[in-house]
Amino acid sequence: MPRIGIIGSAGRMGNALQAAITAAGHDYVGGIDKDGDVRALAAQAEVLVDFSAPTALEFNLDAAIHAGIPIVVGTTGLGERHHWLIDAAAVSIPVLQTGNTSLGVTLLAHLVREAAARLGEDWDIEIVETHHRMKVDAPSGTALLLGEAAAGGRGVHLAEEAVRGRDGITGVRKPGTIGFASLRGGSVAGDHTVHFLADNERLSLSHLAENRAIFAKGAVRAAEWLLGKEPGRYTMPQVLGL
Amino acid sequence: MPRIGIIGSAGRMGNALQAAITAAGHDYVGGIDKDGDVRALAAQAEVLVDFSAPTALEFNLDAAIHAGIPIVVGTTGLGERHHWLIDAAAVSIPVLQTGNTSLGVTLLAHLVREAAARLGEDWDIEIVETHHRMKVDAPSGTALLLGEAAAGGRGVHLAEEAVRGRDGITGVRKPGTIGFASLRGGSVAGDHTVHFLADNERLSLSHLAENRAIFAKGAVRAAEWLLGKEPGRYTMPQVLGL
Amino acid sequence: MPRIGIIGSAGRMGNALQAAITAAGHDYVGGIDKDGDVRALAAQAEVLVDFSAPTALEFNLDAAIHAGIPIVVGTTGLGERHHWLIDAAAVSIPVLQTGNTSLGVTLLAHLVREAAARLGEDWDIEIVETHHRMKVDAPSGTALLLGEAAAGGRGVHLAEEAVRGRDGITGVRKPGTIGFASLRGGSVAGDHTVHFLADNERLSLSHLAENRAIFAKGAVRAAEWLLGKEPGRYTMPQVLGL
Amino acid sequence: MPRIGIIGSAGRMGNALQAAITAAGHDYVGGIDKDGDVRALAAQAEVLVDFSAPTALEFNLDAAIHAGIPIVVGTTGLGERHHWLIDAAAVSIPVLQTGNTSLGVTLLAHLVREAAARLGEDWDIEIVETHHRMKVDAPSGTALLLGEAAAGGRGVHLAEEAVRGRDGITGVRKPGTIGFASLRGGSVAGDHTVHFLADNERLSLSHLAENRAIFAKGAVRAAEWLLGKEPGRYTMPQVLGL
Repeated sequence: MPRIGIIGSAGRMGNALQAAITAAGHDYVGGIDKDGDVRALAAQAEVLVDFSAPTALEFNLDAAIHAGIPIVVGTTGLGERHHWLIDAAAVSIPVLQTGNTSLGVTLLAHLVREAAARLGEDWDIEIVETHHRMKVDAPSGTALLLGEAAAGGRGVHLAEEAVRGRDGITGVRKPGTIGFASLRGGSVAGDHTVHFLADNERLSLSHLAENRAIFAKGAVRAAEWLLGKEPGRYTMPQVLGL
Repeated sequence: MPRIGIIGSAGRMGNALQAAITAAGHDYVGGIDKDGDVRALAAQAEVLVDFSAPTALEFNLDAAIHAGIPIVVGTTGLGERHHWLIDAAAVSIPVLQTGNTSLGVTLLAHLVREAAARLGEDWDIEIVETHHRMKVDAPSGTALLLGEAAAGGRGVHLAEEAVRGRDGITGVRKPGTIGFASLRGGSVAGDHTVHFLADNERLSLSHLAENRAIFAKGAVRAAEWLLGKEPGRYTMPQVLGL
Repeated sequence: MPRIGIIGSAGRMGNALQAAITAAGHDYVGGIDKDGDVRALAAQAEVLVDFSAPTALEFNLDAAIHAGIPIVVGTTGLGERHHWLIDAAAVSIPVLQTGNTSLGVTLLAHLVREAAARLGEDWDIEIVETHHRMKVDAPSGTALLLGEAAAGGRGVHLAEEAVRGRDGITGVRKPGTIGFASLRGGSVAGDHTVHFLADNERLSLSHLAENRAIFAKGAVRAAEWLLGKEPGRYTMPQVLGL
Repeated sequence: MPRIGIIGSAGRMGNALQAAITAAGHDYVGGIDKDGDVRALAAQAEVLVDFSAPTALEFNLDAAIHAGIPIVVGTTGLGERHHWLIDAAAVSIPVLQTGNTSLGVTLLAHLVREAAARLGEDWDIEIVETHHRMKVDAPSGTALLLGEAAAGGRGVHLAEEAVRGRDGITGVRKPGTIGFASLRGGSVAGDHTVHFLADNERLSLSHLAENRAIFAKGAVRAAEWLLGKEPGRYTMPQVLGL
């Protein structure tokens, strides 16, 4: 019954996390939001789960390091600098950062990597995602995670191949690129599809989340799994044994 | 057996048009492409079908006016100025301009208008389309046509509500907007879906074109229908009796 | 604050109904299940909502007639005899029977009728639905409701045109038929798609329910609407003003 | 430039095969249909491609054995006895039998096997396919091929777990089963989706064929690959190096 602290405990994801912690028989030591004291929370917890905002990441990692406890980072919208901070923190504590904590998406990323590795560049890759109307960033962290999987399967760098926000006179599609498109509306918990489009045929790999329970459940499972690990940076496929 | 002339006769759409003209038992008087003489073509034809480029539109309309014959404009990527030119031409000759000449899409637009009129603004509207890798503009003319139908059903102006190329930190979705997203790849002839996304439920209306035959067939049907009409600007729903 | 009684109050739909009654500010007078006393429930309520089983329908209608109150029948898997019972009850009390109480599905049925009326028999109609693994009947009541809408639009009888459970050597598709297919698995609250399939193009109209809240909300809205109505048989489109 | 003979050369698949043979630079030695002389065809060819009917299979295999040449069997609707005949023929000549000759479907089957192997039985498997109105059997050979891949990944036998033509009072879904559903209409060349449905999330893997060219291309590639092989029974994944 590890004691788990939530950073970003208000809102729908925070509520889902609290429910998942209780459902898994763990001890929910409390949660904080925008103006909460993360150091005080870390002092009481054995592991932290962070679903807050990129701007808070540095403080949250510091608190975890100071308390000497692992942290699961599920915040989306991270930039290059945030990944450096995570790498630096992982020298002292176990850190698991992921754009998506569900089993289904983690397996989807594995299948996307496999498909991208087997299919030639004459199969164009396009990733489309839909999320609820309150989501503030695009593409979703999960879409980017799937894009990384596709790029990894092809042996290219996503940063060099990503095409985002296609609009206007774009010219013909540049071979080898990976396209992203984002839809927003309703209460959609998260749909993701990776299309592989060739001459005369298409392969499409999709995940649909009916609600946030799967993300909360996966995040709690990741938190459990991180306890007692050596310092380092870990991934969801490791948690799920993929 | 009316004599039909094609502007934009090379490429896949041009070939599909020639096949459709022959299949419908009409007389194909010839086609021109980039450097062809559109006045010479118009002199031989009873009706023109234009699937070329926005930059050629002014010359094509002039040729039709000069010959006193109707013209079907299926070119996509038109701007405000092009629509003025079409309105001006429609004073002298019958002109039918459309982003999509298929029966299925024309009915889809009708259903989208109906759904948008019946559903409140708590149903967010998002339009996504997929086309082959050679398409140079986004969103497709058909996606914009569907957006106009949705805006019309709601009694708003698409230009004021359209959100295109969503990317980066977008903030929460603005109520009443209509989103567009474009995927490109393979040989996709044209997929379009209009999503209505509410709390806990979604309605999605889609059309999939397996190939260009339907557009060519519809364009020829429109050309037939325009013959003998009074000068004016016409639409596909009129051709199809919707 | 009408007093609403639920028949079929256990299980997921029963829970959703209780939540919706409370959310709408109504008075939930109680619910019964398999061995409950429906007459006692009816004596306390102003309106009944029935999501139980076809075998209980006769008793439930009797109880409503005896108490002189309206009843919403959302039970699926009804046969011809059940519809006679409903017609008979509607002589004395207001009865609203529907295969689906959501706004989205009610509008979808309206669009399906419209599309079927406009498209010729060269557009084959196929209806596919997916529901959770606990559902015991196929096709769903909603799929049949959509089939009725399609048949109505075409001016034919569904009973004569329905093709269900296609399997084995079926021969070529008989023109004018309406096909049904059912998928079962997971916790799917209800996906429905009506396909119109022609040569070279397809039109698909879909609804996806993320959870049961929409059905409960619509059933409560129907119950409110039925209060004070004349005896008779009513439908969801009337409730929603479609 | 091997000499290829087609059994089942009339109809749309036969035409697509002739076009693919020519496109690949091979020598099309002729085709036969229902009343043709398969022995005469085999005498002229270096390899046979059979897309005819199950009833003709025995004669076709005999002709290939008699001529000592390889044969690709793409006929669908085969039963247990046909597979025995193929196994018997494979003692003398190279035989490749497959329900689908496209690269995309072959990869899809590989991904389905992988997903089924990684996901527990709490992920229900459902396979749905759509084909044109002229198709006479259901489910499609490709759907069954995908079902075999799913069953293989789980380590079960498809024959024991398949649920086909779900209709009526079915009871709750039996854990571990694999469901099949078939839609028919229009000119659909072939859509296939394998759904993995769990509590609160779904994974869906799909293939869409825009036309028959991909099957013809893959069948010709298989025919080339079979030339010079030892007698034995071969599969599409071997041809494609998966």
